[in-house]
Amino acid sequence: MRATKHATARAAMIEDEVALEEAPLTLLRPGGEGDSNEMRAKFEKMVREAQIDICKAIEDLDGGKFHEDAWERPGGGGGISRVLQGGKVFEKAGINVSVVYGQMPPEAYRAATGEQGVGSETIPFFAAGISSVMHPINPMAPTVHFNYRYFETDAPKDDPNAPKAWWFGGGTDLTPSYIFDDDIAHFHGILKDACDKHDPEYYPKFKQWADDYFLIKHRGERRGVGGVFFDDMNDRPKEELLAFATDMAQAVVPAYVPLVAKHKDDSFTQEQKDWQQMRRGRYVEFNLVYDRGTTFGLKTGGRIESILMSLPLTARWQYDMQPKEGSREADAMDAFKNPRTWLA
Amino acid sequence: MRATKHATARAAMIEDEVALEEAPLTLLRPGGEGDSNEMRAKFEKMVREAQIDICKAIEDLDGGKFHEDAWERPGGGGGISRVLQGGKVFEKAGINVSVVYGQMPPEAYRAATGEQGVGSETIPFFAAGISSVMHPINPMAPTVHFNYRYFETDAPKDDPNAPKAWWFGGGTDLTPSYIFDDDIAHFHGILKDACDKHDPEYYPKFKQWADDYFLIKHRGERRGVGGVFFDDMNDRPKEELLAFATDMAQAVVPAYVPLVAKHKDDSFTQEQKDWQQMRRGRYVEFNLVYDRGTTFGLKTGGRIESILMSLPLTARWQYDMQPKEGSREADAMDAFKNPRTWLA
Repeated sequence: MRATKHATARAAMIEDEVALEEAPLTLLRPGGEGDSNEMRAKFEKMVREAQIDICKAIEDLDGGKFHEDAWERPGGGGGISRVLQGGKVFEKAGINVSVVYGQMPPEAYRAATGEQGVGSETIPFFAAGISSVMHPINPMAPTVHFNYRYFETDAPKDDPNAPKAWWFGGGTDLTPSYIFDDDIAHFHGILKDACDKHDPEYYPKFKQWADDYFLIKHRGERRGVGGVFFDDMNDRPKEELLAFATDMAQAVVPAYVPLVAKHKDDSFTQEQKDWQQMRRGRYVEFNLVYDRGTTFGLKTGGRIESILMSLPLTARWQYDMQPKEGSREADAMDAFKNPRTWLA
Repeated sequence: MRATKHATARAAMIEDEVALEEAPLTLLRPGGEGDSNEMRAKFEKMVREAQIDICKAIEDLDGGKFHEDAWERPGGGGGISRVLQGGKVFEKAGINVSVVYGQMPPEAYRAATGEQGVGSETIPFFAAGISSVMHPINPMAPTVHFNYRYFETDAPKDDPNAPKAWWFGGGTDLTPSYIFDDDIAHFHGILKDACDKHDPEYYPKFKQWADDYFLIKHRGERRGVGGVFFDDMNDRPKEELLAFATDMAQAVVPAYVPLVAKHKDDSFTQEQKDWQQMRRGRYVEFNLVYDRGTTFGLKTGGRIESILMSLPLTARWQYDMQPKEGSREADAMDAFKNPRTWLA
């Protein structure tokens, strides 16, 4: 699937030549702007606004500009991808908003939900989300990822009485190559504050979930130092969960941007750059082998360039590289293997 | 799992300090050298000899030396990994021999066989094979991959009357960044000659199979220009299939080494190097998402550094890079999207 220049009028409104800021915020989902009380419309508006705000903060830090592509999914829906590549501070930073719907093959449903017990019927679905990965150039500056999404499934055709389902999911996590305790505590602290506004049990529960989720199983190590992760949330009113997701998306800039501002001009050696590149290789392994969003996207025939926007510009696989005992690289590896408590 | 310095006497004999050439050729499988008429022993000997011969040819071309690691698999068996990294000609070249056995989880069985209809019981298995990927530095010199393997499964514990199964599989395929028709015809021609000695139907059938197998489904493009691929072969006597696998392994050097010798000193631009690095990224995508051997290895808990030895030293993911119309990169992309007939 490619960005189409001459698709529907709806898509035309959000093409390259129209700045995202000028486009209406609920264009992508079925039904257009009519039923604005629906969670579908509200969630789309939230993620589009988050995309605008976060891009602005990253552009201010980098000095470069995001390139924007609007695209349609033939099966239903589309998205807006923004990428900043080869910047002064960021090697590659991408923020993707997508609103897709249609019929989902059962293997895609399994990838999306982790559930095994589904039949062979396709399942009508709706999914809206924002997802982003930002890889800075300097190996002392960490990579961040975040993703917030709202998902609905209808009953399968062969079982129209089956319940419809909906849930929220998401998370924000940090992947440094080198460990700076204060930075990581700052990052986790901002996430905790946003969680605590909604439920004091959220942060400890979702911090643990991130430590479990971002495990590269075949390595026995995590891709980074975690953050928060949650999925399948539907245990309270939709409006409350939307408010929570909104606060989490708004926490990204204060949690992350100061860390990059602090380290973007740090001096570093070629060996430290190589170590960063090795960690980028681990990032690729996690995303292609385990990440739900990526495997879901590859199986539903999403727009490949947007799904794989999360991959770093460059990565490295050096055979049997083992950090030296007592080195800063060994300290980082220890943090990836044995998740730490970052907040007192 | 790591190479162990103080494991069993059997492992000690094949440790780093003992050159592979001096070690007996059937050490890894259960039963040792006693029952040398067994296909298990014969196949192990074949792949160990192929590893020695091919390493020699690559060292002669590169001037560098392979580093050797012997390792044990806790669940049963082990292997010998040889890697040449940062050579004059090769960025990274690895040849791995492994002989592993034990209990296989059902999801690993599915990864190994592509079969869906297996129960929840573990399945006793034996697998011996050689696998290799060689990535040259020069973007005009192609990457090669080959893998030849022999596989046995016993009956599951809960169904002891189920038939035991055995099969041979393998293949050799080429991944250039740029298309040189004569080179690719040479490569396919040598493979065809080796196939024709055994069955005139092999080459066309296995060429097609490679074109189908090496497809990166989410891209709609192959990782390279194919070669031959076969699997689940058990339709003639084991000895005949062993002879076929042996000839195919021996065809690797004459099929591949001349291509690298021809192009290792070609001049190239930074743009051409970047294109090669993008293709390396595609190689990573194929191996981590689709390759049976890799996904099988990750799920059975094989030695990670040996399984992922196939990944390139460096790779690149540039957002939405599209080759210019009429360029050499566009020609290569066309060959990856629309497999060609390389032999007249």
